[in-house]
Amino acid sequence: MSACKTSTLLNLAKSINNFYFSEYLNNSCLPFFCQNVQVGLISTSVLSQLINYPDVFTISKKSVTLSDTLTSAQERNEALEKVLLDMREKDLFSALRGWRSECYEIKPQFSAPALFKMERCATPLFGVRQYGVHINGYVQHSSMGMSLWMQRRSSTKQTWPGKLDSFVGGGLSEGLGVMDTAVKEAGEEANVPEHLAVKMRGAGAVSFFHQSERGIHPNTEFVFDLELPETFQPSNNDGEVDDWKLVPVEQVVDIISSQDYKITSSAVALDFLIRRGLVTVEQVDNLPEVVELLHLPLHNLYRNIC
Amino acid sequence: MSACKTSTLLNLAKSINNFYFSEYLNNSCLPFFCQNVQVGLISTSVLSQLINYPDVFTISKKSVTLSDTLTSAQERNEALEKVLLDMREKDLFSALRGWRSECYEIKPQFSAPALFKMERCATPLFGVRQYGVHINGYVQHSSMGMSLWMQRRSSTKQTWPGKLDSFVGGGLSEGLGVMDTAVKEAGEEANVPEHLAVKMRGAGAVSFFHQSERGIHPNTEFVFDLELPETFQPSNNDGEVDDWKLVPVEQVVDIISSQDYKITSSAVALDFLIRRGLVTVEQVDNLPEVVELLHLPLHNLYRNIC
Repeated sequence: MSACKTSTLLNLAKSINNFYFSEYLNNSCLPFFCQNVQVGLISTSVLSQLINYPDVFTISKKSVTLSDTLTSAQERNEALEKVLLDMREKDLFSALRGWRSECYEIKPQFSAPALFKMERCATPLFGVRQYGVHINGYVQHSSMGMSLWMQRRSSTKQTWPGKLDSFVGGGLSEGLGVMDTAVKEAGEEANVPEHLAVKMRGAGAVSFFHQSERGIHPNTEFVFDLELPETFQPSNNDGEVDDWKLVPVEQVVDIISSQDYKITSSAVALDFLIRRGLVTVEQVDNLPEVVELLHLPLHNLYRNIC
Repeated sequence: MSACKTSTLLNLAKSINNFYFSEYLNNSCLPFFCQNVQVGLISTSVLSQLINYPDVFTISKKSVTLSDTLTSAQERNEALEKVLLDMREKDLFSALRGWRSECYEIKPQFSAPALFKMERCATPLFGVRQYGVHINGYVQHSSMGMSLWMQRRSSTKQTWPGKLDSFVGGGLSEGLGVMDTAVKEAGEEANVPEHLAVKMRGAGAVSFFHQSERGIHPNTEFVFDLELPETFQPSNNDGEVDDWKLVPVEQVVDIISSQDYKITSSAVALDFLIRRGLVTVEQVDNLPEVVELLHLPLHNLYRNIC
């Protein structure tokens, strides 16, 4: 990779964190609290609708709070679902068109207990932290050299249809551990047999603060590296992948910087290239800033106490 | 590693960033500007001395500025050296007892041009960003398993004498590239022959915000991994190392969490363990927070414009 890629990668890291550099640093959002703990962030467009549900949301100039009159998790879950179904009925937010009937546990930190649940497609509206897994599937190829497998997301997926993406990725669901989720997704998405999946190694996590047309994505993705034999050919079991592509690492920067790649997943690929010494400070002299932007301190941005 | 290490590693990551969690988040320091760009951070104890040099420092309630009457880099260098020599003469700060007659280039970001120079031992007083290299020297040992080489710093070193430390580390000097610095230090500190040194791979960078008795350390360390053969035995060429120790990775967490290890270097070892899947979220459920604290966004903490 040539040195002229310097600004490309910094720009990419900033685009991944487009929300951080705009509304977050401009302080134009309100923290969203439950039980005196910040669990999310509310943008002005969402705020303008939440004021219509004063029984559920207590709104001040400085914060939005899930009403203290809702004292149990069950009461909060029910009240929130009613609001979300009403907003969906009125078609107020495109995010709610993707209703999954699948709930996401809301907790202030990864290791904290859940305070309530929320329909998955609504989470970007409330800026709640999301956790997922991503697997870098790589091959030390005899003719192509070090290469990365990429999936082409199904054209019928609700989010980022048709985009190139990491080898395997998925959200964390209730009750399943991080490594177990990665092994399960590897089997479902890419037909990775168990004797290969067990070779997967944890490689930390990336954190970023992105905004899409669906809302805010303060995401942390647990990252795994999986070396695959040259003979392995992924195939999809769950209808979520349309195609597969094995890409020599030299081409990865161009692809992940393009509109063809799911932008939030580019954080995972870029972290892989940097950890593996395939992108170095010799080529990218603002590498420290790029590295820092792939590990944005979300834990600290969500530590407001009422 | 057992799950009870959870709080140990989060506490370690917080100790590495002790300045961030105290004076920085308390807003008790003033930004230090040169030419309308933030280059450092001044604590109250240093501020109380800088007011005695009004020709050199312009001090307001909100900032300290290297006087605009000093229009060239040379004027700034000379004025600053005079102040530092005077403060050293009066023995105002222990940091200045370690005068090295070695200057450090002051720049707002790694890739930016230098605005002036400063005697190296004074940099923690002004909270200027420091850049260095660290090498994780590891061995896939036939009997000990994956192991890390650690050096015992010389008992006569000015900083952190006698502490255990990374295999090799050093500051970046003027005019030498990052990788070249790493190769040079590997030769000088550990007698790594060139045919081994070239196998070194970049692995990104760690960033943290530490405070020691010498001042503030907003440091970014470029990280390299170097696999060494079992037969390799490091030896020191520059008098900076007293001893060497090969440590199985299972023992590394205990050692880097102890007082025996140079605290800022523990960031590098911990990053290695996480990148290599030797510390995972299965053992440390607040892993995302730990990872984020090893990559503190210093670039963003130093972007104030006057």
